[in-house]
Amino acid sequence: MRIIYGINPIIEALNSHPEYFKDILIVRGRGGKAGEEIKELASKNGIRCRTVEKEEIERLIKTPHHQGVAAMLAEFRYAEIEDIISKWKSSGEKAFILILDCIQDPQNFGSLIRTANAAGIHGIIIPKDRAAEVTPAVVKASAGAVEHTLICRVTNIVNAINMLKEAGIWVVGIEAESKQDIYSFDMDTDLAIVIGSEGKGIRRLVKEKCDACLSISMKGDISSLNASVAGGIALFEVLRKRKAKVSALPHIVKGDKPVY
Amino acid sequence: MRIIYGINPIIEALNSHPEYFKDILIVRGRGGKAGEEIKELASKNGIRCRTVEKEEIERLIKTPHHQGVAAMLAEFRYAEIEDIISKWKSSGEKAFILILDCIQDPQNFGSLIRTANAAGIHGIIIPKDRAAEVTPAVVKASAGAVEHTLICRVTNIVNAINMLKEAGIWVVGIEAESKQDIYSFDMDTDLAIVIGSEGKGIRRLVKEKCDACLSISMKGDISSLNASVAGGIALFEVLRKRKAKVSALPHIVKGDKPVY
Repeated sequence: MRIIYGINPIIEALNSHPEYFKDILIVRGRGGKAGEEIKELASKNGIRCRTVEKEEIERLIKTPHHQGVAAMLAEFRYAEIEDIISKWKSSGEKAFILILDCIQDPQNFGSLIRTANAAGIHGIIIPKDRAAEVTPAVVKASAGAVEHTLICRVTNIVNAINMLKEAGIWVVGIEAESKQDIYSFDMDTDLAIVIGSEGKGIRRLVKEKCDACLSISMKGDISSLNASVAGGIALFEVLRKRKAKVSALPHIVKGDKPVY
Repeated sequence: MRIIYGINPIIEALNSHPEYFKDILIVRGRGGKAGEEIKELASKNGIRCRTVEKEEIERLIKTPHHQGVAAMLAEFRYAEIEDIISKWKSSGEKAFILILDCIQDPQNFGSLIRTANAAGIHGIIIPKDRAAEVTPAVVKASAGAVEHTLICRVTNIVNAINMLKEAGIWVVGIEAESKQDIYSFDMDTDLAIVIGSEGKGIRRLVKEKCDACLSISMKGDISSLNASVAGGIALFEVLRKRKAKVSALPHIVKGDKPVY
């Protein structure tokens, strides 16, 4: 059983996976548009709504940031790498996968899921050990994106990278110290982006498996970014480059290959 | 008096503004490289270090995330808009200013200060009311960037925008609904970027003052980003465009103006 809370996460989950729901708890007096929408979606899907006191919700989730609603869901179902690969194949697009090498903080993990989903990735790969997993706080921080995103939890990230490489995917680590930057790299290839942990970056064995390591060039006194911000900048740079390529006109240069 | 905590925030503050320090508290047994570095910097600057029990620090700051160190500093000194404008003028660069229209969450505020500093902005403008201010949690989330960044707190954001416009600065809001996107906009002008609050975006009166509103194009099921991630993507897009312009060669087109 897992618990989620907050207006948006619950509405997102009701819209995408009503079958996960066991029970919805709404604080007495929680009305308004959002409360009505949740009750309507619940009734449409035959899910029970219970009116409770605020204290009951707070006993369950141990935070006051529930906006008056919580829900009990069946366990989160992690995906397999094969699911991610098959989502990519059926999309007809270049592969776009995010690998999180030991993100610890639930806020960062949730924010990265939200950002990755908004950037249109095919799936996220995380390790089983020493990393945040999908908890209520992560669901909340993801603004509900968890329910729409394939997340795969593996024992060994290096093995997962090998599988992606066998499928023809390039693996690119984002690392503050790298000489080459994300702006000078051709992103228009099947790609997995690796973001390291908050304190330590990408682990050595994982880094050694990357086809390239790229940095985000900076300019200020502070020369590192929060992991979820660095991830956002890298993922949206991939998206920008791919869109620019689609909309650019081909120019003919020496020889006869069109280049973009 | 304000309190900051955590290894990096304290080292950053010691390096940039030792004159703010009243007192440093170090938990008994907190040794290692970081502990030694703090003690050395403190002694060099004639700041007193007191060894205390963990409980004393936690009573002061009410969180366990102190990494064994805390410090008492003189009040944070907010800057004036004139300070930001003068930092811009003396930099010889195009203006690059961040306006936060009512960011509520200390994590987001701290992360935005860190990102903005890393992107090389000249200063940040925030409103006095209904917005996070510089607190110990913000200093921690900023990874110490607060100490290197001009932050100006104004009664009225609209008046501040008027002042920037009088100085010849373009004011651009980042808004999910805008039709034009950040990628198609020429950023190579004196610029202030406006990021709205987490739930409500940019307030109407502030938006009406913006010279343009730009969106970040997305692709997934989730069509909004966390405020600190959206800010990161927008600020680094400005930096990318300006760097690209510097390194591009001029081409001569119709007439005789060089364009990049």
